Amino acid sequence: MKPFRTVGVIGKRREPHLPTLASLCLALRAQGCEVLVEDNAALAEAPAGRRVSRQELARSVELAIVVGGDGTLLDAGRSMAPAGVPLLGVNQGRLGFMADLLPEQIADSLAAVIRGEYETEERMVLSARIIRAGGDGSSADAMPRIAINDVVLRNQASIRMLEFESWMDEDFISLHRADGMIVCSPTGSTAYALSGGGPLMHPSLQAMALVPICPHTLSDRPIVVGGEQRVRLVVCGDETLPPTSLQAMMTIDGQIGESLATGDAVEITRGAAALRLIHPAGYSYFAILRNKLRWGRGQTVLER
Amino acid sequence: MKPFRTVGVIGKRREPHLPTLASLCLALRAQGCEVLVEDNAALAEAPAGRRVSRQELARSVELAIVVGGDGTLLDAGRSMAPAGVPLLGVNQGRLGFMADLLPEQIADSLAAVIRGEYETEERMVLSARIIRAGGDGSSADAMPRIAINDVVLRNQASIRMLEFESWMDEDFISLHRADGMIVCSPTGSTAYALSGGGPLMHPSLQAMALVPICPHTLSDRPIVVGGEQRVRLVVCGDETLPPTSLQAMMTIDGQIGESLATGDAVEITRGAAALRLIHPAGYSYFAILRNKLRWGRGQTVLER
Amino acid sequence: MKPFRTVGVIGKRREPHLPTLASLCLALRAQGCEVLVEDNAALAEAPAGRRVSRQELARSVELAIVVGGDGTLLDAGRSMAPAGVPLLGVNQGRLGFMADLLPEQIADSLAAVIRGEYETEERMVLSARIIRAGGDGSSADAMPRIAINDVVLRNQASIRMLEFESWMDEDFISLHRADGMIVCSPTGSTAYALSGGGPLMHPSLQAMALVPICPHTLSDRPIVVGGEQRVRLVVCGDETLPPTSLQAMMTIDGQIGESLATGDAVEITRGAAALRLIHPAGYSYFAILRNKLRWGRGQTVLER
Amino acid sequence: MKPFRTVGVIGKRREPHLPTLASLCLALRAQGCEVLVEDNAALAEAPAGRRVSRQELARSVELAIVVGGDGTLLDAGRSMAPAGVPLLGVNQGRLGFMADLLPEQIADSLAAVIRGEYETEERMVLSARIIRAGGDGSSADAMPRIAINDVVLRNQASIRMLEFESWMDEDFISLHRADGMIVCSPTGSTAYALSGGGPLMHPSLQAMALVPICPHTLSDRPIVVGGEQRVRLVVCGDETLPPTSLQAMMTIDGQIGESLATGDAVEITRGAAALRLIHPAGYSYFAILRNKLRWGRGQTVLER
Repeated sequence: MKPFRTVGVIGKRREPHLPTLASLCLALRAQGCEVLVEDNAALAEAPAGRRVSRQELARSVELAIVVGGDGTLLDAGRSMAPAGVPLLGVNQGRLGFMADLLPEQIADSLAAVIRGEYETEERMVLSARIIRAGGDGSSADAMPRIAINDVVLRNQASIRMLEFESWMDEDFISLHRADGMIVCSPTGSTAYALSGGGPLMHPSLQAMALVPICPHTLSDRPIVVGGEQRVRLVVCGDETLPPTSLQAMMTIDGQIGESLATGDAVEITRGAAALRLIHPAGYSYFAILRNKLRWGRGQTVLER
Repeated sequence: MKPFRTVGVIGKRREPHLPTLASLCLALRAQGCEVLVEDNAALAEAPAGRRVSRQELARSVELAIVVGGDGTLLDAGRSMAPAGVPLLGVNQGRLGFMADLLPEQIADSLAAVIRGEYETEERMVLSARIIRAGGDGSSADAMPRIAINDVVLRNQASIRMLEFESWMDEDFISLHRADGMIVCSPTGSTAYALSGGGPLMHPSLQAMALVPICPHTLSDRPIVVGGEQRVRLVVCGDETLPPTSLQAMMTIDGQIGESLATGDAVEITRGAAALRLIHPAGYSYFAILRNKLRWGRGQTVLER
Repeated sequence: MKPFRTVGVIGKRREPHLPTLASLCLALRAQGCEVLVEDNAALAEAPAGRRVSRQELARSVELAIVVGGDGTLLDAGRSMAPAGVPLLGVNQGRLGFMADLLPEQIADSLAAVIRGEYETEERMVLSARIIRAGGDGSSADAMPRIAINDVVLRNQASIRMLEFESWMDEDFISLHRADGMIVCSPTGSTAYALSGGGPLMHPSLQAMALVPICPHTLSDRPIVVGGEQRVRLVVCGDETLPPTSLQAMMTIDGQIGESLATGDAVEITRGAAALRLIHPAGYSYFAILRNKLRWGRGQTVLER
Repeated sequence: MKPFRTVGVIGKRREPHLPTLASLCLALRAQGCEVLVEDNAALAEAPAGRRVSRQELARSVELAIVVGGDGTLLDAGRSMAPAGVPLLGVNQGRLGFMADLLPEQIADSLAAVIRGEYETEERMVLSARIIRAGGDGSSADAMPRIAINDVVLRNQASIRMLEFESWMDEDFISLHRADGMIVCSPTGSTAYALSGGGPLMHPSLQAMALVPICPHTLSDRPIVVGGEQRVRLVVCGDETLPPTSLQAMMTIDGQIGESLATGDAVEITRGAAALRLIHPAGYSYFAILRNKLRWGRGQTVLER
């Protein structure tokens, strides 16, 4: 594969990651890379590398290396996917569903990646936009936003359950009474959707899963639809509330939230650009599942 | 759409279907169709129509109408899919996931279909073959067989759980300890796999779901993989049994069974030809789900 | 059984129930009962009957008849259980898990009940109190409150999952990362807990179920413990939040909410007094389940 | 607690357990115990100790120590519970849900137990008997049999689903279409029933769970009933089979099987005598769950 010359570094704003960030920058420069570091306070003490904004970084680099947990990776992924910049994750402490390197592997494995010994994988992402009831589509939140894992519709006040409709293209799916609905990508199928009873989806699949959260109807089960389809969730009215009250919330990757009122809809489609992940040679998706989900002979929990 | 001229009729060998079969043949001839009737005992009393074998029927007709429940439809589907003959289901008593007409709709709706007022839908099917341990691939059961709903690997004696490996192409997925594994098509996602905790899959999706049956490891969850992938399930040895003993069983659509021994494998891929279903105009997949699974406002079972 | 002489009437404050309330009061007086009506605005137009507060009603009547849905019944049950007043539910439209009479059955079935032809059933209730971190136990919310269905610990902002410990008496059960936890009575096992994957529990059982909501660990499964046990849920800190921020919420029967901060605990025990339900003769718990959950031959949704 | 003087040793008939059995017998004699060893071939080489039958052992000892996995413990438990002999499990390799000692703990922990430093726990067991259709109750299988974990009704040929009724005392619960039904004790709630979606039940609870296996009706959910109740499962006819054909199977703890025909019933009640388990001081049920089910902070598998 093509070696990387210009590399961006994105880091979580937390103490324990600083030594990793420092050694990462050093290792990259030792490989002859030009290093751009996202310009935020936490990295002030990190060794040189040009400081740039997230936007400039996305425009300029051939590879973005992200130091942190899944949360940091999701945040970086939402910026890098539209820019077409591939991502490599370095996690403190343990491997994640998306982080491929431990800090102690920077010296060896990273050098190999920079030289071009890597595998590349495309992950479809989601695009979500809000369609306000009675709006003309020109409001700020009508702009589509990228989600790596999932777009979630939830009841706002935890006391009330939510009533909402689901649609696939022009087809009405169902009226749901539930705590909410998770719409996830294959990447997100190992995250919140799994807690809600959704299936695992292989990352090569172009598909979305609709996973109802605590549905009142026991037959309201997860549905997998094609990636080319358009899913719409519409918040229904609660007759006991004033029509303008904010009843629901949309969240993106569990990190960005937006309030919704009766009649508002969330539209979810496949994002225009995929997220490119860079893996060291020998990457195996199922090996990660086996490790994270503790599958296999030694991990059996039941005996008869 | 193109009108149908030569129509085959396939019927379940049970008493209550005979009047339906009779009125169906009459209605078809009234429409000017040439009618071929599958030649089996139960239809001996049915009104004329040329008697032919299932094979000849598959070679000769433009449309096969199947009278009976889901079981009869599955059986007919396995014959018609490879021959490229589309299927229309007529069910006694109630609509099924695949049967679109009630007997009382034969007069009106059937006429419209024959005239060309219909919708056509392609459903991917599965192809399963057994690879015997130590065999040369030339045994009879190495021939691929079509499954409309699912291919199931099960423990043979209900007393013992089964140990088996799952593979996707060349990638090892996991070692399972469970009662078995269901591999289903989108069509089969509303059948046995749903009972086992699998997701619904929209019929337009090209995908298979692997649904473990009562797995010992609680994180051994359903996985959806792409239709272009090759799934393999390999029966592992039980050290307390002689290696030649038959420990497992493969079933096709819950209708055809085959015993398996240690080391035997079942390989499942997408079938070469899809099953074509004919629906009266206005067909809606989700309307069927809403009806069969009792979704929606009036069917909510819980109140808070 | 003993006939009822003094009967209280509790009604939901909604239009559609007014005619039912009126005919109920008339029917009771025709039976020679003294009728006490809960004194609230909605019943201003209802036919006579002495107007009293909920408290006075609880002190004075031998039977409370509740007109409304499950919500109204839960609310009334929390008042009547401690007072030892038995409850009979009349629901508009359809029978509920706790409502035994339809409005059209008032004339016949109610008369029989008043005459003493009824069955009585005791349902254990829950008692919940909040133990504030660093508090001396004297705050207002340290007073135990009755729950008929369930006590729920939930994340407050829907964006964040919650971390909390569970304890049974002096035994640590586990540390959970989840959206929350439902602790339900047998009566509540057909409500929210069922949506969350909890088991049904027969009402004669003296037990509570702990049902985690969307737990991160897939083996974090519902646990049933004895009614004589004391369950405690303790909110753990989130290092990214100030320690005083309100992270969680406790809700009683989905109707009463209270905010919780890091270190706060909710303690749940069996309530001192059971809720007594009055059923017309011939009551069957399983018949209600079969009806509400659509069990049985005709309602099977899958075919193989 | 009372020290133990006469101790029985029961061992699995497998090679790897022999050294453990040997060191166990030596340790017991060093403590001054009289040792009785179950008289079977595998122990022929084990160091002395009087050889006795299982029956004589049950009659003569104050404590039975079982070396082996959960299967061996279940088998021994079914013999010891009716005789009132308490059980202590020693497992090769790893602790089980019921095995409290590892072989390397024999030297220290076992000595303490023999001296009287132990905790005792009572576990309710199940009693199952078959009621043959048209029989007079005098057949051999009408004799009740003990089950430690569960009594399972299963379809015999894996191709067909089973239709059966469930009853609690004189109350009809439901008609089920499923692969079968698991009726488990609290002890069995961590075994097969957990795989089937049943809840955990604390061992102090006097209760049984009815857990349907792959039910066709999605609302056919696990039910917990009181230990004092009588559960009956009745095999329904399959009109396509001759009435005498054996359609179903009852298994006890997954180890003993019995065929059932149409109309046959299995009756399950609480066993007359509980199983007494001996634990080293400091035993914690939840600590075992946390370990076996990998609960808690370090074992979280998902990140958002």
